[in-house]
Amino acid sequence: VTTFLPSGIVTLTTDFGTADGWVGAMKGVCLRVERALVLVDVAHDVPPQDVACGAATLAVAAPEMPPGTTHLAVVDPGVGTARALLVVVAGGHAFVAPDNGLLDEVVPRLGAAAAWRIEAHAWLPAARSATFHGRDVLAPTAAALAAGRLRPEAVGPSVAWAPRPRDGDTIVVRYADRFGNLVTSLREPPPGGLVLPDGTRARLVRTYAEAKPGEVVALMGSDGYVELALRDGSAAASTGLTRGARLGDAP
Amino acid sequence: VTTFLPSGIVTLTTDFGTADGWVGAMKGVCLRVERALVLVDVAHDVPPQDVACGAATLAVAAPEMPPGTTHLAVVDPGVGTARALLVVVAGGHAFVAPDNGLLDEVVPRLGAAAAWRIEAHAWLPAARSATFHGRDVLAPTAAALAAGRLRPEAVGPSVAWAPRPRDGDTIVVRYADRFGNLVTSLREPPPGGLVLPDGTRARLVRTYAEAKPGEVVALMGSDGYVELALRDGSAAASTGLTRGARLGDAP
Amino acid sequence: VTTFLPSGIVTLTTDFGTADGWVGAMKGVCLRVERALVLVDVAHDVPPQDVACGAATLAVAAPEMPPGTTHLAVVDPGVGTARALLVVVAGGHAFVAPDNGLLDEVVPRLGAAAAWRIEAHAWLPAARSATFHGRDVLAPTAAALAAGRLRPEAVGPSVAWAPRPRDGDTIVVRYADRFGNLVTSLREPPPGGLVLPDGTRARLVRTYAEAKPGEVVALMGSDGYVELALRDGSAAASTGLTRGARLGDAP
Repeated sequence: VTTFLPSGIVTLTTDFGTADGWVGAMKGVCLRVERALVLVDVAHDVPPQDVACGAATLAVAAPEMPPGTTHLAVVDPGVGTARALLVVVAGGHAFVAPDNGLLDEVVPRLGAAAAWRIEAHAWLPAARSATFHGRDVLAPTAAALAAGRLRPEAVGPSVAWAPRPRDGDTIVVRYADRFGNLVTSLREPPPGGLVLPDGTRARLVRTYAEAKPGEVVALMGSDGYVELALRDGSAAASTGLTRGARLGDAP
Repeated sequence: VTTFLPSGIVTLTTDFGTADGWVGAMKGVCLRVERALVLVDVAHDVPPQDVACGAATLAVAAPEMPPGTTHLAVVDPGVGTARALLVVVAGGHAFVAPDNGLLDEVVPRLGAAAAWRIEAHAWLPAARSATFHGRDVLAPTAAALAAGRLRPEAVGPSVAWAPRPRDGDTIVVRYADRFGNLVTSLREPPPGGLVLPDGTRARLVRTYAEAKPGEVVALMGSDGYVELALRDGSAAASTGLTRGARLGDAP
Repeated sequence: VTTFLPSGIVTLTTDFGTADGWVGAMKGVCLRVERALVLVDVAHDVPPQDVACGAATLAVAAPEMPPGTTHLAVVDPGVGTARALLVVVAGGHAFVAPDNGLLDEVVPRLGAAAAWRIEAHAWLPAARSATFHGRDVLAPTAAALAAGRLRPEAVGPSVAWAPRPRDGDTIVVRYADRFGNLVTSLREPPPGGLVLPDGTRARLVRTYAEAKPGEVVALMGSDGYVELALRDGSAAASTGLTRGARLGDAP
């Protein structure tokens, strides 16, 4: 669904942390556009400039929100360069984000997408900083969209949007979550389990509780990817594997 | 007060952290049930699977909320096992949480409690993951309760609820807070102070300012428990004491 | 503008962290005063008792909020001592905070200020703890102000307010942000760049992208202060500089 009927809900996903004032500045910009917007924090402790982790976070959270939600997402290592800023509509949701892969996980889950490059519109401030496009471009765009005062097609020219291609045959660790589970790139449960780089096999189980103490197992995670997990412990610490480590399908 | 008149406010307390998308997913589920719910973050950095810390956090925060609030609390090391999921009503508040001790501190503060085990109701999704009951069971139950579309007694059978028994005579460190204060299990100010495991005595003072530089003191904390504190420093780091350490009443 | 027309928005900025229940307790107190208040988290991971960092966070976030906003700010190492608690109105915003320098950055950005010391009013609880004035004094004051049920001049006697004097000629590192950028006390871009304590020069650039790999540069930050930055890295880690380090204007 590439039509967008705004509900007034704006989610925020950033790597800004929760010590500095940047998140608050973006919220202020939104509330200056429309006091009645509903601001919903998704996550602000995405590791700094970690676009892949931000993409995974958005993919877990955004599809659960009601259609009509506007998602303001800022993990933007390229701020100050020529990378585009986008509005992407998919599944009745609108995303406002830099064009750097941050939407690559979530948008394909929502179906067909339409996209526009943010160039100029009435809600942008005349003066913009070189280092904080989240506050100066993305936040006012998201707020005006969510408030129904700006249409996606009014932000700038229509552009083609597609996720960056991925190596579909390789199984890799995508990221470690807070509990030390290693979330992989595999979407189908591997009947024989997964083979770790050191040759050991992690068998497939259905819940954490089926694992033996100290055993690293593979199981289907709640967001649709296979995970490596250690019962009552951290699979990341136990295996030493990090982002990008290659895994094998067990025969 | 075991009647519940929902106000539309839902608080969230979890160990999910603020980097991943799980908190956002639960918020999305709530807003899909009812867009007008008011979502209030209490704390998401409860240490992973630390039920005792989560219980203390809830006990500090939840009683301050207005009656009619629904509290969604997820610290759930037993996800995937047979532990029950509960709705507990006390003091006009409703709690939606796993049955693992997470409510043991807060509910007794609010008076008589009534409880139900969540088994089946119209707001649960047909398909549920094995690893994320927060999103698939607890969030839709909390949202429907808060929106007044589900009554507590409609979630499943009534069950007896009581906090797990504790050793009432032993004084222990319950947890260290962010400032390094050691919160104990003692509710009455000890006139002679507390005796640490190494035999030193922490005298009782009324405010941090009464302590001498470098002196570990005992004082009544704002949530009704005696704390060990170090002025301008961390009592936890200074004493080396951790959760469960035993303390004595000074004669 | 020293008149205050409350909008019902309350922002929260604290050093309470996001594991314990204190933030939730303050939110509960606010919602008990008025359920329709809009609570906006600015930041809760200000380093414990770091008033200077809290002041910088407020200065970045608060001016972006719409006039009529009430800002509840609690970084309060002096709790339990005789330090005053204040309501300060500037630029149409109201601040409720301890009188310890926490407002020194933000209020001067908003123009003329009027201030009152909180002594007694109808919204304060009869019993107050010695250690949690955020919950017992500041939160009910902020909520009643934001709800339009209490006027600033009704909280206590009018007092003169001015920021603590600073050494205007010295350029120092004020704090390191989450990305390792070193935010300085300098408000004007130095044409010749900045000189670090070891004598090396950081040249002035306009965006992070103009820096060479590995080069520490000076640039105008989005909040109006000159920063030292390292492209794709942490200037704080690279230079070893910390809060208070002295810098020089390059000739």
